[in-house]
Amino acid sequence: MTTTYTGPAPADFTDVRATNLAVVLDYVRTNAPCSRADIAASTGLNKATVSSLVGELIERRLLRETGMTERRIGRPATMIVLDGAPYAAIGLDVGTDQLTVIAVDLGGEHLLAWRRAFTGRGATPGRSVAAIAALARRALGRLADQGRQVLGLTVGVGGLVDPDGVVRIATGLDWRDVPLRDSLVRALGAPDYPVTVDNSANLAVLAEHRYGPYAGTPDLAYLTSGPGVSAGIVAGGRLLRGAGGYAGEIGHFVVDPGGPECSCGRRGCLEAVAGVGALIRRLAGTEPAGDLEPEVAGIVRRARAQEPKTLAALHEAGRHLGHGASLLANLVNPSVVILGGHYVPLAPWILPTAGEALDTLVVAPQPPGAGLVASALGHDAAAVGGAAAVLDAVEAGRLPLPTA
Amino acid sequence: MTTTYTGPAPADFTDVRATNLAVVLDYVRTNAPCSRADIAASTGLNKATVSSLVGELIERRLLRETGMTERRIGRPATMIVLDGAPYAAIGLDVGTDQLTVIAVDLGGEHLLAWRRAFTGRGATPGRSVAAIAALARRALGRLADQGRQVLGLTVGVGGLVDPDGVVRIATGLDWRDVPLRDSLVRALGAPDYPVTVDNSANLAVLAEHRYGPYAGTPDLAYLTSGPGVSAGIVAGGRLLRGAGGYAGEIGHFVVDPGGPECSCGRRGCLEAVAGVGALIRRLAGTEPAGDLEPEVAGIVRRARAQEPKTLAALHEAGRHLGHGASLLANLVNPSVVILGGHYVPLAPWILPTAGEALDTLVVAPQPPGAGLVASALGHDAAAVGGAAAVLDAVEAGRLPLPTA
Repeated sequence: MTTTYTGPAPADFTDVRATNLAVVLDYVRTNAPCSRADIAASTGLNKATVSSLVGELIERRLLRETGMTERRIGRPATMIVLDGAPYAAIGLDVGTDQLTVIAVDLGGEHLLAWRRAFTGRGATPGRSVAAIAALARRALGRLADQGRQVLGLTVGVGGLVDPDGVVRIATGLDWRDVPLRDSLVRALGAPDYPVTVDNSANLAVLAEHRYGPYAGTPDLAYLTSGPGVSAGIVAGGRLLRGAGGYAGEIGHFVVDPGGPECSCGRRGCLEAVAGVGALIRRLAGTEPAGDLEPEVAGIVRRARAQEPKTLAALHEAGRHLGHGASLLANLVNPSVVILGGHYVPLAPWILPTAGEALDTLVVAPQPPGAGLVASALGHDAAAVGGAAAVLDAVEAGRLPLPTA
Repeated sequence: MTTTYTGPAPADFTDVRATNLAVVLDYVRTNAPCSRADIAASTGLNKATVSSLVGELIERRLLRETGMTERRIGRPATMIVLDGAPYAAIGLDVGTDQLTVIAVDLGGEHLLAWRRAFTGRGATPGRSVAAIAALARRALGRLADQGRQVLGLTVGVGGLVDPDGVVRIATGLDWRDVPLRDSLVRALGAPDYPVTVDNSANLAVLAEHRYGPYAGTPDLAYLTSGPGVSAGIVAGGRLLRGAGGYAGEIGHFVVDPGGPECSCGRRGCLEAVAGVGALIRRLAGTEPAGDLEPEVAGIVRRARAQEPKTLAALHEAGRHLGHGASLLANLVNPSVVILGGHYVPLAPWILPTAGEALDTLVVAPQPPGAGLVASALGHDAAAVGGAAAVLDAVEAGRLPLPTA
């Protein structure tokens, strides 16, 4: 007996069958091969219901029967595994300097992974949307050639994205109130699969939650820097979205009131003292523009060469980042805070001071393995997360239409 | 079509029937009187399943049939309503200066509400636990006299409570590693209902989520001051607990690095600049001890008399509190941040500056009605929330044992 409980199940009353389909699909995903009797025994659903649910999932080509049988007491059973061969889930991440599109099948195998240079800043939103749609169309064409049915497309943007897929603010792209989802739906000819738009950090933490070293950990936080700084949070096994979809905005938390000026007009915001853009500004003496990756690679070179100014700047950025991470740790108490994006190559020099600052500022006794780690998923996390978001939705019961 | 989805249902595979019982119970709670056919139509469960679930809920005396019938097309149907007459859910809040115990029935009607003076600080944990157990026993005795079956007892403490009900740190009570749950279970003779312990702010936000003016709002935050400051968060309709159960620790977030010293050794923590203890220290010039309520009442009197020093201190505390609230707003994006506990009587003087600071510091476009409000539940919120936590657990499918 513990004090843990999760409150009432989030029951959408019209959706009990969808929930049960999701329960069966998720069970098979984690326990395949398994028999209908296994599913019934483990889920508590009665056998007739399981047969009906499995039948529907087979019809939709999400599951299939194998020839395998189980030889226990009684007659052998037909075993069920994921089908999913004909499906594709697509994630497309819009960075300031590049676009990444990744498609996976139901089991998470990559079907394609492309990166393209992109002039996010400086172009009009209309041109940017056209470039995004063009890349999506090419990926869709390739998947069609492979005979894949698309389950959905989720696009990530570093910024505030409302529940209708309007990008309210994306400073890295210089966007305000860009109706990205509707524009893409139009550009793709109103497809019959869902097209959604989400914050990149939200998608990245979904990728960590599904595919990273901490996959399945119910409470995770992800901290990344675009040029800005933002967080994605999984709490109790679900993405924390908030009332308007804007959770995770940590970049303008003031960690150093006397610090450098921030793009928001205040001083010493996390973004201004520990963002990758700020680091480049300080160390390269130039305004970060276009592709950040070579600039970050330059910082890594100078850090490897033990250049004192570079090391000092990284250590200081680490301390501030640890301060920022302590906010996440204290307010949402994740098992671990994962540093992603451009922080990954810099991690050897920022993690030590960041970890110290975090340890000093965390109030609660830490669970085992708590602290800060660098992401193992690298720059693809948000695009992979877009595909993961599609799979999450399917597994929650938003099943694809049966093929004609 | 929106970008909103909630990810996979939190499926505990052994618990599909419990979930379905919960679905039916929650449906009747919000739609009674209703027929079995109504339940089947609205939940998507088949009629045979609904009959079996309703039968079990009637057997456990959570539902009952009424003589009422519905006259539509076809034969009249027996209507179902909440029974719950014989049940009681108990919440007990341990303040630094008083104990509050509240019992409610399934429908939320108060069966008893008692407050007792309590010397939380200065007494040994053993004596305090004995006092808590004594009050619980008296409440249990009264409920037994009323013929009530107890569904559960949840005790709230202002501090870090682990999932086993051990109070790891409660500075207001001077407790460290006090195994409150186990001690209470022993003192109450190992009762057959669940005894749980939780953080008071967590329980208070559950009370707001069930009974407050924002009841049912999926994303809520609650900010309260004991003498310390802490937060409770409901995200996506569920309490945000975090990996170790320690979410909501906002009190030692540094809002004013040059500010007054905090009990934690740092300077300018939210608790040190906007906690009710700090306010008393500044305005009364005395160390807050024992009952804070008369001291707060004194501050209210001086504020009503427009005493400049008092008004200035409250306005400043409000600004800092707005800064703290902005963290909640930016990181978890609730529909509203509710100020509770001792902040409620002070709200007329702290809300204006707090609201201004919040508006300045919130990054996202605010949903309608966003901002800061004072709790309508007052000092009873945590005790009511303890009872609400018991009802949440029942409605999630942790049903009481059938009476012998």
